[in-house]
Amino acid sequence: MKQVLAALVMLAGLAGIAVSPAALAAGKTSMSHIVIQVSDGDPGKWQLALNNAENVQEALGKDKVKVEIVAYGPGLNMLKSDSKVAGGVNAAIDRNVQVSACGVTMKKMKVTKADLIGGVTVVPGGVIEIMKRQSEGWSYVRP
Amino acid sequence: MKQVLAALVMLAGLAGIAVSPAALAAGKTSMSHIVIQVSDGDPGKWQLALNNAENVQEALGKDKVKVEIVAYGPGLNMLKSDSKVAGGVNAAIDRNVQVSACGVTMKKMKVTKADLIGGVTVVPGGVIEIMKRQSEGWSYVRP
Amino acid sequence: MKQVLAALVMLAGLAGIAVSPAALAAGKTSMSHIVIQVSDGDPGKWQLALNNAENVQEALGKDKVKVEIVAYGPGLNMLKSDSKVAGGVNAAIDRNVQVSACGVTMKKMKVTKADLIGGVTVVPGGVIEIMKRQSEGWSYVRP
Repeated sequence: MKQVLAALVMLAGLAGIAVSPAALAAGKTSMSHIVIQVSDGDPGKWQLALNNAENVQEALGKDKVKVEIVAYGPGLNMLKSDSKVAGGVNAAIDRNVQVSACGVTMKKMKVTKADLIGGVTVVPGGVIEIMKRQSEGWSYVRP
Repeated sequence: MKQVLAALVMLAGLAGIAVSPAALAAGKTSMSHIVIQVSDGDPGKWQLALNNAENVQEALGKDKVKVEIVAYGPGLNMLKSDSKVAGGVNAAIDRNVQVSACGVTMKKMKVTKADLIGGVTVVPGGVIEIMKRQSEGWSYVRP
Repeated sequence: MKQVLAALVMLAGLAGIAVSPAALAAGKTSMSHIVIQVSDGDPGKWQLALNNAENVQEALGKDKVKVEIVAYGPGLNMLKSDSKVAGGVNAAIDRNVQVSACGVTMKKMKVTKADLIGGVTVVPGGVIEIMKRQSEGWSYVRP
């Protein structure tokens, strides 16, 4: 298995294709991994993103799909302690949804981790996080 | 051909990559297959999605590209019989665009198939449908 | 290298997978290439797209990532000479971001290249451009 993996990575490397061995080893696919983007300031969209996360977990099985919500730009407000959907964000985190806040937006908006709902993950940048997930083979939805 | 396909799937399997043999056999690619998401309640976005579908068919050839519009959340209203863009939806279906309605949203909004424009396909879930298409290699656009 | 590339393309071809040799040769990946879509008429979204482009370049290194902004539909107004974000569009072009205007939208809105900010690239169609980039392995973000 390790040899086959190494051979695949080497072969791809020779052909000029960048392949992440981590992604290959993890077997991440777009049917078992989804990143949901929130970049709107509209609470209606925040609720829709939370519904999407829940529906995907119900349809595929909570333990068979990895769901991440990435909030950036005006979407960061979704993750503040006083957010209109704070209850839903807490419930999502309880269901093992990774809820990520964009570090670049936090700096720009002078928001600190203490201002965010407990359990939110701070990532260096929202778009960078989405690029990383797509490069690992995750599906992408922007409600 | 079948042996090469089997070998590729086996090799990928050994390396821990989930590959859909159906997708491989169908040869679906992101240049010949596109899923267009509608999750806004705004008729302007509905019209834009319909224009996108038509333009893609005109540019690539109606028989050379498979186009699917997936409506969910507030976007479901696009597909109701009394929709402001009902004429455009009918025309898209006539041009072999698959127009899909989210079953989860229908249940939540108490909308039945009888409330929808004739020819609309009901799928179990809008986001699940989009994940499935991405896992099969389709392009994704969210107007 | 050339032989391995040819073998990979042939093998994929036998299995019914369409692979772009150009994409393979260029080694385009979703971590080093991103296409950012603008299809809203809202200047707030235009600014967010410009911020996204700048942040990606800062995080990954301006010379290590290829960024393209594709504007279509109501998003085309972002690229007109009298746009509220003309300064930001000029700055993005100066930083080697490819800024692309949808030819289909231009025709429909009777906008000519002379109406656009200098340095904007006119592409045949915005959605077609995005499909092409995704088929080449680029990441996709729609702010």
